[in-house]
Amino acid sequence: MRYVVIMAGGSGTRLWPLSRQGMPKQLLPLVEGKSLLRLAFERSLASVPAEQIWVVTGAAYADAVAADLPEVPASNILGEPTGRDSLNAVAWPAAVLYAQDRDAVIAQVTADQLIEPIETFSACLETAFALAEADHSVLVTLGVVPTSPHTGYGYLHRGAAIEGFPGAHEVLQFAEKPVREVAEQYLTSGDYWWNAGMFVWRAETLLQQLQLLLPDTHALVLELAAHPEKLDEIFPTLFKTSVDYAVMEPVSAGRGSAHVAAVALPVRWRDVGGYASLAEILPQDLAGNAVSGTCVQLESVGNVVVNADDDSVVALLGVTGLVVVRTPLATLVARAADAERVKELVAEVARQAGIGFA
Amino acid sequence: MRYVVIMAGGSGTRLWPLSRQGMPKQLLPLVEGKSLLRLAFERSLASVPAEQIWVVTGAAYADAVAADLPEVPASNILGEPTGRDSLNAVAWPAAVLYAQDRDAVIAQVTADQLIEPIETFSACLETAFALAEADHSVLVTLGVVPTSPHTGYGYLHRGAAIEGFPGAHEVLQFAEKPVREVAEQYLTSGDYWWNAGMFVWRAETLLQQLQLLLPDTHALVLELAAHPEKLDEIFPTLFKTSVDYAVMEPVSAGRGSAHVAAVALPVRWRDVGGYASLAEILPQDLAGNAVSGTCVQLESVGNVVVNADDDSVVALLGVTGLVVVRTPLATLVARAADAERVKELVAEVARQAGIGFA
Repeated sequence: MRYVVIMAGGSGTRLWPLSRQGMPKQLLPLVEGKSLLRLAFERSLASVPAEQIWVVTGAAYADAVAADLPEVPASNILGEPTGRDSLNAVAWPAAVLYAQDRDAVIAQVTADQLIEPIETFSACLETAFALAEADHSVLVTLGVVPTSPHTGYGYLHRGAAIEGFPGAHEVLQFAEKPVREVAEQYLTSGDYWWNAGMFVWRAETLLQQLQLLLPDTHALVLELAAHPEKLDEIFPTLFKTSVDYAVMEPVSAGRGSAHVAAVALPVRWRDVGGYASLAEILPQDLAGNAVSGTCVQLESVGNVVVNADDDSVVALLGVTGLVVVRTPLATLVARAADAERVKELVAEVARQAGIGFA
Repeated sequence: MRYVVIMAGGSGTRLWPLSRQGMPKQLLPLVEGKSLLRLAFERSLASVPAEQIWVVTGAAYADAVAADLPEVPASNILGEPTGRDSLNAVAWPAAVLYAQDRDAVIAQVTADQLIEPIETFSACLETAFALAEADHSVLVTLGVVPTSPHTGYGYLHRGAAIEGFPGAHEVLQFAEKPVREVAEQYLTSGDYWWNAGMFVWRAETLLQQLQLLLPDTHALVLELAAHPEKLDEIFPTLFKTSVDYAVMEPVSAGRGSAHVAAVALPVRWRDVGGYASLAEILPQDLAGNAVSGTCVQLESVGNVVVNADDDSVVALLGVTGLVVVRTPLATLVARAADAERVKELVAEVARQAGIGFA
C-alpha cells in the first residue's frame, strides 16, 4: 500500500519570534491562515487518504501537529525525542510501516516549501510511486527542474530516461551545493535538477540498503518498530546523519544493492526559510512593504512587517528595508539585509533575557 | 496664602504610543518610575504644603492625576472639559482661589520639564512669591538663564534690577521665538532669558488685568468660580488664547494697570517633548542605545528603545538611529530624525486602524 510521510522536523529559528518554543516554522499559519505542514498534508491527500499519511516531527511538537492535522490518526504521528537528522526521519518510518505492511511504498515529502501547481506535484508523485512499485531495487528521488542557478541546493545529475515512466531518469551522481559558475553550467546543460530532498521507495528496498550500508541503524530501527516503548532509549543512540550522505550518494555510486532514479518535478518551488522568502508570499501594500497583520506606515517603503499580536498596531515612520515582527512575547527589528542572522540574535535573547527558543 | 497651581494640560502626542488616550505625557512614569507631574508636585512641596497645591488638567485625566498625586485633595484638581489654552489655565484657578482667599498668591508652574537643581528652583519661587506679596501691582514671570541660543523658546528682555529681591528684574518686552542669529545675540548680550511659561502673582492682580484687557473672560471665570456646576456650560465659551499673548505682552507694554517682573531661574531646564529629549534622560547601553525596559541588541547602535510591555522583549539586529517603542497596544518604529513627526503618524493610525489618541 502507498503511504506519504511528511518530514516536519526542525524549528525554523530564522523566523523568530514567529517561530518559538513549541511553535516551529512548519506550524505557523503563514499562508492565508494555513501552515506549511497543513499545505503539505493537503498536497498529499491527492495521492493517499488521510489514514495513510504519517508525520515525523519533534516529540515536543506532536500535540501541535495533531491539532493542525485532525484528519491524521494520532498513531501516525512519530515524535522524535531528539533530532537525529534526515536519515532517521526516513529509516524509522520505513521500519514502522514495513512491520505492518511488507509491501509498503513510501513517499517521504518535506513541509518547508510552497509548491505550485499542486497537480504537477501529484502527477510526479504518481509516477514515482508507480516506478517504485514496478522496480523493487530502485530508490526514487524527486528532481526540481531549476529555474535559476541557485547555489543553495544540492543537484542531481540525471542520466538515461527510464522507459514507461515519463519524466523519470537514472541518477548518475549527487552533486554538492555548487559555486555560482558551476550552478550556471548546470542550468545551461539541462542535465541537472535540484535535489528536492523528497523520496519514494518501497520500505523493504530502503531497509535493505540500510542493512548493507549502516547495519547498526538498520538493527536499531527494526527494534524500535518492534518495541515502540523503547523510543526514548533507542532513538538518541541512532547515528546522526543525512539520508543523502548515508544512503542516496553511496547507492548512486553503486555501493548498495539498488539504483537511484529521479522524477522531474517541474514546479514553482519556494523555500520559506527566513524573512526574505516569507516576504515573497506576503501581500504588498502600496509603498512596497510586505505586510501581514495590522500595520500603518508613513513614508516607509520596502519593509517586511508581520504583526502577529492581535489588537495591536505596528506603526512605521520614515523607515526603509527593515524586518519588523511583533508577537505577544517579542518584537524583532532587523535590517532586512541581516535577517538571515536572526539565529544569532535568538541566542543573544536567550542569554540576556532568559527567553529560550526550543 | 501661597498656592502652587501645576499646569498639566496637553496630551503629548509626540510620545505616542507611550502617551495615549487617557494617558498624557505628564502622567507617564518616565523618570525612575515617576511622572513629570509627580516631579513637579515634589518640587512644589518645597514652597507650600500639599493642601495648597492645585492641578489644572484635562477633565479626562482628572482621575489619573488624583491617583498619581494622592496627597493632593481631590477638590484641588481642576478638570477642563475642553482645552482652552494657557490663559484659562491661569484665569480659572485665579478666580477659584480668589473666591476663597482674597490674599491668594499663586505660582503657576509647568509640568513639562526636568529642572535641576530643585533647590535653585525653590529659591527662585521664594523670591517671586515675596515680590508678589510686597508689590500688589506686579505680575512675576520666571526667566530661565539661557545656556544655548535656543530658537524654540520665547525670550524675556530684562530691564533694571529690582532692589531687595535678588535676581528680580523689570521686564521690558516679551520677544517671540527668534531666528538663530537673533538667539545668538540674545545669548551674548546676557539681557535675555527664556520665557519659562511659569508665573507668580496675586490672584487679585491677575484678575484686575483680565478685567481691563479681557472683560468677558474676567466675568466668565468669576461666574465659574461662583457656580462650579456650570463648568460644562461656561468653560467651552471661554476665549482660547495664551496667557503670554492675552496678558503678559500687553501688560509689559503698559496696556494694563500692573507691570511685569522676572526672576532669574539659573537651572538646567529640559523639555521632555518627544523621543529626542526623552533619549537624553534614559540610561544608555554599551552600544549607545538609550533604553528603557527589556531590550536585547546585536550590532545595533544609537537607537532609542522604550519597551513598556512587561514580559516582552524588544530585539534589535543591525539597526541604527531608530526609535522603537513597544506598548501593549502598539509598536512604533521610526527613524530618529523623523521622530518629531509622530503626530502625523498618530493621525494616520487613527484614520487607518481606528485607534484614536484622545
